[in-house]
Amino acid sequence: MSSRLVQRLGVKLPVIQAPMYNAATPALVAAVAKHGALGSYGAGYTPPDVLRATLTDIVNVVPDKNFNVNLFVDAAPQKDSKEAWDAFEEILTPVRHQLGLDTTPRPFPTSPGKCVLEQQVQVLLDIRPRVVSFCFGVLDPKLIKSCQDFAIVLGTATTVEEAIALEAAGVDGIIAQGSESGGHRGTFLPVVNNADALIGSMSLIPQICDAVQVPVIAAGGIMDRRHMLAAFALGAEMVQVGTAFLTTPECALPPQRKQAIVAAKSSVASTVTRGLTGRHARMLRNPLVDALHPHEEEAASSLLQRQRMADIFKLHDPSYSAMLAGQSHRYCQLQDTVAAVLSRFE
Amino acid sequence: MSSRLVQRLGVKLPVIQAPMYNAATPALVAAVAKHGALGSYGAGYTPPDVLRATLTDIVNVVPDKNFNVNLFVDAAPQKDSKEAWDAFEEILTPVRHQLGLDTTPRPFPTSPGKCVLEQQVQVLLDIRPRVVSFCFGVLDPKLIKSCQDFAIVLGTATTVEEAIALEAAGVDGIIAQGSESGGHRGTFLPVVNNADALIGSMSLIPQICDAVQVPVIAAGGIMDRRHMLAAFALGAEMVQVGTAFLTTPECALPPQRKQAIVAAKSSVASTVTRGLTGRHARMLRNPLVDALHPHEEEAASSLLQRQRMADIFKLHDPSYSAMLAGQSHRYCQLQDTVAAVLSRFE
Repeated sequence: MSSRLVQRLGVKLPVIQAPMYNAATPALVAAVAKHGALGSYGAGYTPPDVLRATLTDIVNVVPDKNFNVNLFVDAAPQKDSKEAWDAFEEILTPVRHQLGLDTTPRPFPTSPGKCVLEQQVQVLLDIRPRVVSFCFGVLDPKLIKSCQDFAIVLGTATTVEEAIALEAAGVDGIIAQGSESGGHRGTFLPVVNNADALIGSMSLIPQICDAVQVPVIAAGGIMDRRHMLAAFALGAEMVQVGTAFLTTPECALPPQRKQAIVAAKSSVASTVTRGLTGRHARMLRNPLVDALHPHEEEAASSLLQRQRMADIFKLHDPSYSAMLAGQSHRYCQLQDTVAAVLSRFE
Repeated sequence: MSSRLVQRLGVKLPVIQAPMYNAATPALVAAVAKHGALGSYGAGYTPPDVLRATLTDIVNVVPDKNFNVNLFVDAAPQKDSKEAWDAFEEILTPVRHQLGLDTTPRPFPTSPGKCVLEQQVQVLLDIRPRVVSFCFGVLDPKLIKSCQDFAIVLGTATTVEEAIALEAAGVDGIIAQGSESGGHRGTFLPVVNNADALIGSMSLIPQICDAVQVPVIAAGGIMDRRHMLAAFALGAEMVQVGTAFLTTPECALPPQRKQAIVAAKSSVASTVTRGLTGRHARMLRNPLVDALHPHEEEAASSLLQRQRMADIFKLHDPSYSAMLAGQSHRYCQLQDTVAAVLSRFE
């Protein structure tokens, strides 16, 4: 493969491991790099000092700094009010009761948490990873330019219009997130109905390739060489792969969650909801999804929901976790190593 | 291309024109056949005598009978009650008022219409087209076997489980309908939420290919050679193409509707609803969709809705029609000929 992007990145395989905030560890990033692809670390809401320490760890094992750090831009408006917090407290009570957790209503947090984006970018300016990607919006063009002193900068689009906006802001490449994708949807431009922004890769990739000049990376449902060759036929230069890495020993998910992913064999096991995390995300349906999806209109912001759900998520019970996974999850195998996953793209 | 299916069909191009009930005319079927692909006629709810006359017309212009006739199997339960009719009458009143149509409530029809499937199959046993396809369920295995005396028989699947059920019933091939597809969703096995059966082609096609032995035809968002090569990389042997033919002179859609399809340039213009036709279908969002989608839980059966909406649909106003189209609709061009559409697959 000799695409523009692969040449610039100097990787052996045209594969980017998806950032998977909270699931992708430095060990996963390092293993992916070792086997010739590009590893990604999801910065998410990580405080700048923690991010600095973690990225320093990664640089220790990936000294050429050929890895990607993903940022949350948080452009879409989300409910950050006491009312939203209280409403969801009530909806969660039966779930907490079911799990034997404390059901005493908790007060609205004095600090609902905040996006620490600018300070995170400051860390990146010091660490200088070779790739910076972002999602949920368009990074300030000035920050994009600063990062381009040392990095290739990639934005995430779920529609053609978002891809055009990202190119106008100056990105070096666009991750086209098809509807097959597991995890959070990057949709940031307004849509009448979020379901309308669930464009399948077969349709989305060539439309984005035709609309922009920069390289396109296909994401969503990609597990092996077949998907990669299809993405290339559609015009993409690389692929981004998430779900395939979830069950690797190098991934931070607890064993009971890995087992649950492998056990989910129905092709209609995944669904898209913002009930669990405040943002639209594709995950495996479980009792928690069934309890919260009907109330997704009342979903508070991601930052509030993280605090409110922390005691539930800490149980790592697959029935009461956000089991983020894409539509090709049936190919996941238990104890699949990173080497085994990447060998399927050779 | 020398796939099993292409060889059996003896077509030049591995392309099936989608049946598109009510839009695909004998002229369209004949033009597609003339240019080396497989044309399809959608029998839908057409009465057996009308179907016989129409298919005779097609045989006159396609004497080798190398075309496909598509049947509705109607497996999923739908609301056929007077209550459902009356509820929808009320929801439609503001739309009728807006359009200057008579808003007098109409009585529940003495015959809500019926599926004439068995008599339609009888017509096929006489006419003997080379291909018979069906959707919305599994055709009775005995009928599949009867048709196999003269035809290749294809079923439509939107999930892996449906593909397995179709193969078990004895079909010769499976049309894998990705979430990108325009028109009606063929989903027939129960799902918790119909949205969960919207599996993108990138994920659906290889999963179905791995689950069955029979050839797979990829459908959904396919407009040119790029999509076709992607579908082949994923394991499909042929592609089914619908939306690309909608704006051809050979297609029966009225000019104002063709113009509206070409004018819809947003990549998030289409949505999936059962509000307009009683069944989940992907169509362009318009004032009629906006009026009826919020009430889709109250949608009566397709047969009742056809009667109830007939006066509205007769206007051919693009704002008040079911503008069925897939997620690649932006590639439609006005007055594109069938020859031009098919040349993009060469």
